[in-house]
Amino acid sequence: MFVTVLLLLGALCAHKGHGQESEATQRPGHVSVVIIGATGDLARKYLWQGFFDAYVKQVKGGNTFSFYGGGQSPSDKATPLMFEILKGVSCPKDMSQERCALLKDQFLRLAQYRQLKTLEHYQDLAKHIEKKLQDEAMTETGRLFYLSVPAYAYADIADKINQSCRPTIGGWLKVVLEKPFGHDLTSAEVLASQLASSLKEEEMYRIDHYLGKQVIAKILPFRKENKKFLDPIWNKHHIERVEIVLKETLDVQGRMSFYDQYGVIRDVIQNHLTEVMMLLTMRLPSNLSSSEEVVQNKLRILDSLLPLGKNQAVIGQYQGYNSEVQLELNKTKDHISLTPTYAAVLAHIDEAQFEGVPILLISGKMLDKRVGYARVVFKNDIFCLQNQNGVHCKPRQIIFYFGHGSLQYPAILVSKNLFKPVLMDAEWKEVTEHSDVSVLGLPISDYYVHTPTKQHEAYSELIAHIFSGHKNSFISIENLLSSWSLWTPLLSSLDSAYPRIYPGGEDNGHMLDIHLKGMDISYKSEVVIISPDQTAGTSANSAKVLQGKFCNADMVSAWSEELVGQLAVDMQEAAEAAVLESGVFHLALSGGSTPLALFHRLALHHFSFPWRNTHVWMVDERCVPLAEVESNFRTLHDHLLHHVRIPYFNIHPMPVELNHRLCVEEDRGAQIYESDIRTLVNGSSFHFVLLGVGFDGHTASLFPGAKAEEHGQSLVALTESPVKPHQRMSLTFTAINRARRVALLVMGKGKHEMITQLSRLKNSTDRWPVTNVKPDNNRLVWYIDYDALIG
Amino acid sequence: MFVTVLLLLGALCAHKGHGQESEATQRPGHVSVVIIGATGDLARKYLWQGFFDAYVKQVKGGNTFSFYGGGQSPSDKATPLMFEILKGVSCPKDMSQERCALLKDQFLRLAQYRQLKTLEHYQDLAKHIEKKLQDEAMTETGRLFYLSVPAYAYADIADKINQSCRPTIGGWLKVVLEKPFGHDLTSAEVLASQLASSLKEEEMYRIDHYLGKQVIAKILPFRKENKKFLDPIWNKHHIERVEIVLKETLDVQGRMSFYDQYGVIRDVIQNHLTEVMMLLTMRLPSNLSSSEEVVQNKLRILDSLLPLGKNQAVIGQYQGYNSEVQLELNKTKDHISLTPTYAAVLAHIDEAQFEGVPILLISGKMLDKRVGYARVVFKNDIFCLQNQNGVHCKPRQIIFYFGHGSLQYPAILVSKNLFKPVLMDAEWKEVTEHSDVSVLGLPISDYYVHTPTKQHEAYSELIAHIFSGHKNSFISIENLLSSWSLWTPLLSSLDSAYPRIYPGGEDNGHMLDIHLKGMDISYKSEVVIISPDQTAGTSANSAKVLQGKFCNADMVSAWSEELVGQLAVDMQEAAEAAVLESGVFHLALSGGSTPLALFHRLALHHFSFPWRNTHVWMVDERCVPLAEVESNFRTLHDHLLHHVRIPYFNIHPMPVELNHRLCVEEDRGAQIYESDIRTLVNGSSFHFVLLGVGFDGHTASLFPGAKAEEHGQSLVALTESPVKPHQRMSLTFTAINRARRVALLVMGKGKHEMITQLSRLKNSTDRWPVTNVKPDNNRLVWYIDYDALIG
Repeated sequence: MFVTVLLLLGALCAHKGHGQESEATQRPGHVSVVIIGATGDLARKYLWQGFFDAYVKQVKGGNTFSFYGGGQSPSDKATPLMFEILKGVSCPKDMSQERCALLKDQFLRLAQYRQLKTLEHYQDLAKHIEKKLQDEAMTETGRLFYLSVPAYAYADIADKINQSCRPTIGGWLKVVLEKPFGHDLTSAEVLASQLASSLKEEEMYRIDHYLGKQVIAKILPFRKENKKFLDPIWNKHHIERVEIVLKETLDVQGRMSFYDQYGVIRDVIQNHLTEVMMLLTMRLPSNLSSSEEVVQNKLRILDSLLPLGKNQAVIGQYQGYNSEVQLELNKTKDHISLTPTYAAVLAHIDEAQFEGVPILLISGKMLDKRVGYARVVFKNDIFCLQNQNGVHCKPRQIIFYFGHGSLQYPAILVSKNLFKPVLMDAEWKEVTEHSDVSVLGLPISDYYVHTPTKQHEAYSELIAHIFSGHKNSFISIENLLSSWSLWTPLLSSLDSAYPRIYPGGEDNGHMLDIHLKGMDISYKSEVVIISPDQTAGTSANSAKVLQGKFCNADMVSAWSEELVGQLAVDMQEAAEAAVLESGVFHLALSGGSTPLALFHRLALHHFSFPWRNTHVWMVDERCVPLAEVESNFRTLHDHLLHHVRIPYFNIHPMPVELNHRLCVEEDRGAQIYESDIRTLVNGSSFHFVLLGVGFDGHTASLFPGAKAEEHGQSLVALTESPVKPHQRMSLTFTAINRARRVALLVMGKGKHEMITQLSRLKNSTDRWPVTNVKPDNNRLVWYIDYDALIG
Repeated sequence: MFVTVLLLLGALCAHKGHGQESEATQRPGHVSVVIIGATGDLARKYLWQGFFDAYVKQVKGGNTFSFYGGGQSPSDKATPLMFEILKGVSCPKDMSQERCALLKDQFLRLAQYRQLKTLEHYQDLAKHIEKKLQDEAMTETGRLFYLSVPAYAYADIADKINQSCRPTIGGWLKVVLEKPFGHDLTSAEVLASQLASSLKEEEMYRIDHYLGKQVIAKILPFRKENKKFLDPIWNKHHIERVEIVLKETLDVQGRMSFYDQYGVIRDVIQNHLTEVMMLLTMRLPSNLSSSEEVVQNKLRILDSLLPLGKNQAVIGQYQGYNSEVQLELNKTKDHISLTPTYAAVLAHIDEAQFEGVPILLISGKMLDKRVGYARVVFKNDIFCLQNQNGVHCKPRQIIFYFGHGSLQYPAILVSKNLFKPVLMDAEWKEVTEHSDVSVLGLPISDYYVHTPTKQHEAYSELIAHIFSGHKNSFISIENLLSSWSLWTPLLSSLDSAYPRIYPGGEDNGHMLDIHLKGMDISYKSEVVIISPDQTAGTSANSAKVLQGKFCNADMVSAWSEELVGQLAVDMQEAAEAAVLESGVFHLALSGGSTPLALFHRLALHHFSFPWRNTHVWMVDERCVPLAEVESNFRTLHDHLLHHVRIPYFNIHPMPVELNHRLCVEEDRGAQIYESDIRTLVNGSSFHFVLLGVGFDGHTASLFPGAKAEEHGQSLVALTESPVKPHQRMSLTFTAINRARRVALLVMGKGKHEMITQLSRLKNSTDRWPVTNVKPDNNRLVWYIDYDALIG
């Protein structure tokens, strides 16, 4: 039934620079390839062709091969289907018909379908392979399982392979997996741990077929080969922005059971576009073949991305989508799917090299054109004194063009007024004869254009890399989980967001155009929003801020975002007034999570805040080392101080750690801080003190039941918290009530009960410490959001 | 001979918002106007016309006037000349010929020429005025002296005015001065102090006639009126760059005796263009009429400009200039003038709001066109998914167009895809009917265009402001000196620089185009440089770095700039290796001035330095408070730490101040620092220690004669310096010699003698402390520049 033919894959194994996992040095033997899902869509379109390409490419060298198709169906039903596919594989264009027929015939004879449903089936396969090895006295080189099946089946199949199909001693096992690798961080972790119980990490090859695209695989080599040109310009001073765009014209009919659960971000942005972004921005590895270095550098970029929130994305859905969902998934007419089919995401890398450079990741279905590219647009750093339309005054960009679109072939394009690129690679050639075409705003004659000498399918490339153990072309588990860590919070925040509905095709007009606003992104054009839910609290008109009274003091109230905005404005006004008056602004800030939104607001929107003249003091601190995540100062540092230019000398953390111990009375930390305040702050009167209030009515680290009067005229004291860490250092009411302005910020439904109780109190009491905040002359202002105020 | 006519300047004095110096409330009386230099070029072209405009505008109100022309020439010679000029003044276009003739006649009768050369002449003038006041029983409102004479005469004239011409009690004195106000900071200070001995600051009106140009005077009001549109975009996140450009087509023939001493930077950039820059970037005053606030905000911007060095400017000289100089100044044929007639300067504001925004100041003679403008170009923050040529995908800019050029009239232009500006001013109107003209790259129909309803000459505007005491329109002394502080170092650094020679006019082609390279600027195109001097040490090919041996250790040597570049590269390599190995890089840095160039290099060029993982320690410290300018840490902070993103926790200043006292043994500062090192630095072995060497061979704060062995195994010690401040804290040789890498940086001719002596020593000695730097295994590298090495 099946014949083993000597298949010589020598050159595949000798693939240049394939890293430490390479088996190039292994002596030749027999390799068994098993495609599970042998008659599925992916196998039909790409996989068999890919394995045939690998087979065809090589007619000299080492290993012998056999190919098994596997699946749920019984052999008699699936075998004809599979051979139908196999007969359809095509030879390279430059091969003679005769030779092609011979090779296809050989390939078919090496192949066999086997039902792989139960553990017995897998055991039978194993026995079959072992008998064959014995019969033909062959050494086993390894077994390659390609899992072209839905992800939910992975764990079970991996378990069966592990139980019954591991190769004989000395042979390798490679299991190839296709995305989706989970749906979010948790599900990815679950899948990872399930697989890890059966397979070792080095045995798994997670495919992202974008890494097999020739242009994308060339990004790092291009950066290395053109290092001398790129080094001076590959940074925030020269790059205006990065765009990674994948536009499709098709809809998703026929794939709804998958697509409606995933949407465009999970489908292509979390994986394909994120990979491209990393290749563009990661530190260039000193050795491109070192998987370890590549993975480490990718991880570093992922870790340094600023968090993505709902303000960093816009989503859309093509008009026909919802009825397609209803039809395909048997939903009723009132079913509404919020799954986005279009998304634009704005990412920022929080590293000096790329700080502030906008990185756009954009993809969608039913758009006007099919095209994919990554483009690095450079800032205009030329000033043309005359003839501003001259050639060197034109925009400059580097484009990694994946294919389709106006150019119709994959290419790397570099503006001629940038540099003439070097491509040290016989597999690439320069294109000098152009049709009259324009690429991303410039005529093609304005670019140096390079394209692969031969175009290869991504899957064929990757199958070759699986054989050679070239792990760089696959997704490592750290990489995968780190990517999900980045995307999961955004996906959650979009969970109940309404996508903008777009008609599809050219009719989209400017509807999906994007406006970058600092760190935020929005649609450029306003449209009537269909859902009433979406307007609540987000439209500019609803940004109302109420002024009122609370507990005999002034109160400002609004929805949380506007409230924080108002507090930031008020704080900046106070800062400017203080600086004008005395050249300095003394600000004391509280810990806790409530002020985080304020810190972000100040860091990202208040460019003209006089930080240079501002001294930052702590209202209270936990007795833990300053650099620990529990420390109030650490939070303040990471969310605010690290992002603004404030002199080192103006930063005043509380000295909770002295002589390598924490908050020991004899170390006199509170007295030291008090003495610093008395020395630097005029009259020990801070210009602005920001406080929060706990559920129990505590403020600063002054807790219920403690006798505040015991602090006397001290400004700083060691205190005790009912919750861990118990030891605290805190400003006293004496210090707080001396301030020129005190702001009490209270946000969230959780605080409503406390606010209600406070509003009923008549007098100050140690039971509700916050009632002791009583600076003279209306210098106290409550900032309470509607959630806390109204509940 | 002369007649006094009631001249009613009421409305001039009631000029809206004219600040606290206003005399609007003063009761009417008599004003004497004296133009010294009455028949000079400026008076002929602008001044008499300006005073006539003021006279014509107003025919009701308070004061009476007399006008005196003054000068060196005797009356009989100058009087006819002056009246010739006076007869030439013109009336507003909309005035009837009859009325014009009447007004001119009145004006002529109010005017009189007087010789003003000696003190007696001034005394006579004073007597004349006083007699007149007495004769006609008038109260004196004030005396206005307009000094339209060369600046060298200012001090003398001011002295004479002060001695003899001060008004009677209750009257004001206003003395108007024309630039140049000095030639550099020193000369400006000298002039200022000379004038201050005769005149009070509030009596002086320093004219920059650009402040009288209607478009420029409108910049602040425009910013205020359009605050709601500008606030979100007037910052580094939205502004791509700012250009302030003044192109002239004329040469400077006939003005050589002035021009050749000054050049284009002193002539127009230090004053006119700098003023415009300040108006664009200064914090918007809450009250535009408050001179104090305007001056303060201008000063703040000047103070926050990054220093300008030779890398921030390019200069040029038109081809015919040198022979014109030879001819006009009677120089020989071998005389070479280096005076620039073209300059482009790149400024940066070191404030969060504008950090990194390039500000170009460009002006030149003999260029292709006559035009002046200030343009704010905005970043492209739109992503157009399709139709990238659509109207809202176009570039966006705001242009303050001073006049001439393609538009031919002064205007403020705002791109239509930016916002529709508000101009709350009856003196401005919108232009909606356009000819088919293009302004700075866009057709005029793409802009909202506003222009003054009536065009006024700058001098007429300013003369009105002198009367109204509107001091905002003049240059304050602080402003002037602060501007010279900015420009003087650049001017000095360009003193012996060779300008690029350009042919003039359209023929300049792309020759004067500019390339921005991060913080530096250069000509875009390379040309053959005529002078051999200019190539030395600056061309890329000469950037040779030598490797060698010094005192049995490795040595790197080069010209200072390349040496510092190499050291920065080596340091980054060490940092990257350490971070790769252990996740952290411990760097100990020295004080002193030698490392400053290194700090700048690291801050401005090493974007990918792993600061986040770097801990910075001090090699030594002076026992002064950390924030004082003498402190090593303060220097390190201001030149490096403040400019990079290094976490607060990674910064380790030496604890020289404890318990509010400095380096007291019992406070155990050295032991605290040592304990910190032992806790954080693996094996107390720094990855990189940067040292310098003093003239006396000291390194760190380890001075000759001190017994190093007394420090034993301590890592940190209190030491004594022979120079003030005597008390120091320093790493010991034990700490230094444990380091993984020690770099000894020595630069400058002054160190040559010491280097020579060191090279002859055989053994280490306390007489030359640096010889005790002996880490094992070639871990010491000397970095010595050619000046120190060769002398």
